[in-house]
Amino acid sequence: MSNSTRDIDALIELMAKLPGLGPRSARRAVLHLIRKRALLLMPLADMMHAVAVTARECLRCGNIGTTDICDICTSPKRATGEICVVEDVADLWAMERSGVFKGRYHVLGGTLSALDSVGPEDLRIPQLVTRLDSENITEVILAVGATIDGQTTAHYIADQLQGSVKLTSLAQGVPIGGELDYLDDGTITAALNARKEM
Amino acid sequence: MSNSTRDIDALIELMAKLPGLGPRSARRAVLHLIRKRALLLMPLADMMHAVAVTARECLRCGNIGTTDICDICTSPKRATGEICVVEDVADLWAMERSGVFKGRYHVLGGTLSALDSVGPEDLRIPQLVTRLDSENITEVILAVGATIDGQTTAHYIADQLQGSVKLTSLAQGVPIGGELDYLDDGTITAALNARKEM
Repeated sequence: MSNSTRDIDALIELMAKLPGLGPRSARRAVLHLIRKRALLLMPLADMMHAVAVTARECLRCGNIGTTDICDICTSPKRATGEICVVEDVADLWAMERSGVFKGRYHVLGGTLSALDSVGPEDLRIPQLVTRLDSENITEVILAVGATIDGQTTAHYIADQLQGSVKLTSLAQGVPIGGELDYLDDGTITAALNARKEM
Repeated sequence: MSNSTRDIDALIELMAKLPGLGPRSARRAVLHLIRKRALLLMPLADMMHAVAVTARECLRCGNIGTTDICDICTSPKRATGEICVVEDVADLWAMERSGVFKGRYHVLGGTLSALDSVGPEDLRIPQLVTRLDSENITEVILAVGATIDGQTTAHYIADQLQGSVKLTSLAQGVPIGGELDYLDDGTITAALNARKEM
């Protein structure tokens, strides 16, 4: 590649750093962008700039928004006394899409991990303890992943909060639309153990 | 999502239009970008803007560069009398990475297709015919895909150029590092028919 195409090469290199894109798919994406210069490339450059300028982490819950304290934390409607603890902003967004939870969130920013030396201070767990009092929390829903690290984190948080608040976790069982044949043994066991009378 | 996060939503929607990304992976990519604001999001926005301003199709061969006539078309070193005909800019880039071809290119921009009503005029085939004389071309290498549409296009171009120039196509056979066990019947047949004495 010659000198005058170095911007294109640099763009491909940057795009290849996105999760889910490698060098080959980044090349494809950049060619697509150049072909759709007015419809896609220009708007995308502008919107990335806008988001880079305005996006920030909520100082209270860790959600990503455009203000220091996010809309969910400032809305009085969401002061239900319930806090849903999630691992990641993506999980918070997934909960919001379902629209079923009316309270506030607390984003941990990961899970405890001895291997990666992630401790409680790295996960906003002290901030969670502080919020319990300042926001009159009555229930903490531990909506972390059903992985080993997720469950370790849930147990650690439960230990920390024991006695001061009602603690719950998401139900485990057969997903809606799920066929038993395709489910793993762990899920089937959990669903059978938590069976309900009809 | 509330009003103040609409830029983030708009960015996710634009990212989801890239080939290889869907709504879910676009969300993941945008979260990643926001977390790496200084290292990735800002440079990416700037570089997209730069490419949007400078990138253009070479008027002669269809390559993408930053000048009206690309570096390959202007370089006197590449005036070897050989033109390599490829379907797409991505194919041109792949050929350039191998570094084996020293001549110039002609990017068709697709393949002939009755179903999608893509005719010869849509594929720069008339421009190819014009270039043969103006650039003293002695050999045209048809480096199109070994698909049905690709081969149809190759046959059409061969018909158009017959007699005026030497026509060649890429060899077909076992890929380097390829194991026979994993190859399709067509490739094995082609490789056997084109077998060489050692």
